[in-house]
Amino acid sequence: MQKTHVVIVGAGFGGLKAAQALAKAPVRITLVDRRNYHLFQPLLYQVATAELAPADIAYPIRKIFRGRPDFGFHLGEVQKVNLAEKKLYTDTGDLAYDYLILAAGGETNHFGMESVAKNSFGLKDIEDSIVVRNHLLRMFELAGREQDPEVRRALLTFVVAGGGPTGVESAGAISELVGLVLPPDYPHLDFSQVRIILLEAAGRLLAGIPDRLGDYTFRALQDKQVEVRLNTAVSEFNGEKIILKSGGEIATRTLIWAAGVRAAALANAVDSPKASLNRLVVTPALELPNHPEVFAIGDLAYFEQQGRPLPMVAPVAVQQASHAAQNIMRHLAGQDRLPFVYKTPGILATIGRNKAVAVMGRWQFSGFFAWVLWLNVHILRLIGFHNRLSVSFSWAWEYLFYDRVVRLMMPDIENLREKYVRKP
Amino acid sequence: MQKTHVVIVGAGFGGLKAAQALAKAPVRITLVDRRNYHLFQPLLYQVATAELAPADIAYPIRKIFRGRPDFGFHLGEVQKVNLAEKKLYTDTGDLAYDYLILAAGGETNHFGMESVAKNSFGLKDIEDSIVVRNHLLRMFELAGREQDPEVRRALLTFVVAGGGPTGVESAGAISELVGLVLPPDYPHLDFSQVRIILLEAAGRLLAGIPDRLGDYTFRALQDKQVEVRLNTAVSEFNGEKIILKSGGEIATRTLIWAAGVRAAALANAVDSPKASLNRLVVTPALELPNHPEVFAIGDLAYFEQQGRPLPMVAPVAVQQASHAAQNIMRHLAGQDRLPFVYKTPGILATIGRNKAVAVMGRWQFSGFFAWVLWLNVHILRLIGFHNRLSVSFSWAWEYLFYDRVVRLMMPDIENLREKYVRKP
Repeated sequence: MQKTHVVIVGAGFGGLKAAQALAKAPVRITLVDRRNYHLFQPLLYQVATAELAPADIAYPIRKIFRGRPDFGFHLGEVQKVNLAEKKLYTDTGDLAYDYLILAAGGETNHFGMESVAKNSFGLKDIEDSIVVRNHLLRMFELAGREQDPEVRRALLTFVVAGGGPTGVESAGAISELVGLVLPPDYPHLDFSQVRIILLEAAGRLLAGIPDRLGDYTFRALQDKQVEVRLNTAVSEFNGEKIILKSGGEIATRTLIWAAGVRAAALANAVDSPKASLNRLVVTPALELPNHPEVFAIGDLAYFEQQGRPLPMVAPVAVQQASHAAQNIMRHLAGQDRLPFVYKTPGILATIGRNKAVAVMGRWQFSGFFAWVLWLNVHILRLIGFHNRLSVSFSWAWEYLFYDRVVRLMMPDIENLREKYVRKP
Repeated sequence: MQKTHVVIVGAGFGGLKAAQALAKAPVRITLVDRRNYHLFQPLLYQVATAELAPADIAYPIRKIFRGRPDFGFHLGEVQKVNLAEKKLYTDTGDLAYDYLILAAGGETNHFGMESVAKNSFGLKDIEDSIVVRNHLLRMFELAGREQDPEVRRALLTFVVAGGGPTGVESAGAISELVGLVLPPDYPHLDFSQVRIILLEAAGRLLAGIPDRLGDYTFRALQDKQVEVRLNTAVSEFNGEKIILKSGGEIATRTLIWAAGVRAAALANAVDSPKASLNRLVVTPALELPNHPEVFAIGDLAYFEQQGRPLPMVAPVAVQQASHAAQNIMRHLAGQDRLPFVYKTPGILATIGRNKAVAVMGRWQFSGFFAWVLWLNVHILRLIGFHNRLSVSFSWAWEYLFYDRVVRLMMPDIENLREKYVRKP
């Protein structure tokens, strides 16, 4: 008899954890993803700012599960989930399942602002980060030969929207790229014209962090020449000018959008109730209503605790993945399923060299020690000894030499497009 | 008074050497390239076979020339050279010159075979190498779920055309990727079905190398399960089937074309006589006829020595670059220009782990010692301590663990295309 088949969609933090948690279960697993690698998203902004290479934060999925004969990987994008027939349709073939774990994560949310969706840059995948890197470097090349001082100033104005960890870390990283790394490359460019602006719609940075640390973050960013504007929301961006909800304007070519996330488009391929941000409603045991064989976790799932939806962050996905795997094993063993309870972990964000904020249980701290903690936690969470070594080496190199080695404008996107058209 | 302006087109081995050789000359230099980095082309095949990351073999041009106030970099593609007015037109602005050094290198030559140009893969730039890497990995993903044994066999047949160093090294690297690295990733795939074929139109590999070393190379490739077919030329490739000039056929999805080079398209933008392979004819002093202020060097230049054109290899470009720079300095100092004489350096090619061939003057050797020499020469020729360290580390890692860490299918080309269209 064929073993029970568990299909997991998405090789992010949640999907990977679910596959690992099922390692000893009497099931065979197929992990489906449209990429062949797991991506360590929290460091994407470092690829975008020329500090890390894509391969430093991406890890081949097949390699993670080497030596597990009951594990299979299916490269493809899910187009439809047929809950009644227990079948998945992907662009590269169909899969039947006994249990299904949906862990496709989230995508950038522009809240319906079409001009922002069209002209801003995201930071959700490797392609995003390479596009941002190319763009940032191109702005300096263009500014270096621009005669019109107003245009030059716009080219050298970099705006990040969103005061969460991604926005704060990105703004800090751009500031260090501009302030510490690039000036010797452009001896004839006046770097005092550079402006870096962080916009946050709410009244504070890093929502949920204690006031003291929020203030520290604010001041640390200001020390790095980042203009932080709280209570400031974007309403339009045509590629040359941001229009704020308040009516103000910012002339810039660069808007990095880290201000919103919603459930991945996969949610639309599943005929099941959705809640806010297009997330799939789940039961206390993390199943879809009326489909106890289908679980949704992480950014894709809408789960309330103490009357509020859980945030779209990695720890939720990881804890829910373990829980969903456990519930499958309990079911196979004839036991009742258990309701999920989220345990809030710490908060950790860096603003740059020697500076970070950390909350762990009752402990709160900021500065050098928090920064060392940030470094170590991120190194340890990377998969594989090679990537840990490689990232450690890159960070040590930058720290010592104020140098970021990956400041390459590539791949040449237009060129790739042409080749892609040639080889479909 | 403005300093004499030397414009150099191309930041390959030749262009870089010319800019370095002019460091002490009383001139200002502008280096023009459509990329912002220098590329170490001899190791491109290692990016294509998932051993090195692009950033390992690419180096930001501006960083090379840091601290030289008379050096400028212009990012752009040359569209027209107006010899009469001493002006260059690029897609990002015009440049006037006093002296011009054309060092744009070569491009893939398909000898007019349209089907080959359309469906084969090149190995001349980073984009090429990423496209090849994506393709090779995709073939294994497709083969892993292919039911038809004939189609599966075609998916697992990899053909390299061209028995020069690039072809030999690529075939060896594909063999080790397939034989040593990938099998644990695809436990259900029968790797005995894989075929790697190296086609060479002439009767021997590595033209110009002594017979003994040519035989060694042939045997070393056979030991690595590479089928070497001499006196075999391609006439057509429709993406699924290669038709040989002899009439035979090979069912495959992969043809890597390392069988021909010609002068870069820049040659067409210069109104000056061309010789074979579209190369610009130059005088003994490396100038264009009737334009003593314009030099052409390397792959772009046609220069005969002892009745034969110089080969399109890096040492020619480097030696000619020094010579052109010297002639400019002699001219500025009121001295006569000197004719160029090429001194043949050695030959060095690796077939894989522990195996290489080397010719240095009267010395010829093969095997482990030649391989160690190959490693060292390539490490030393890379620019920058960081890249040397990083490449050494990657090679040591592979050697010890039979692992290539960059086996990532990315960037997602279709996705990039969409983004590119959104952000022109």
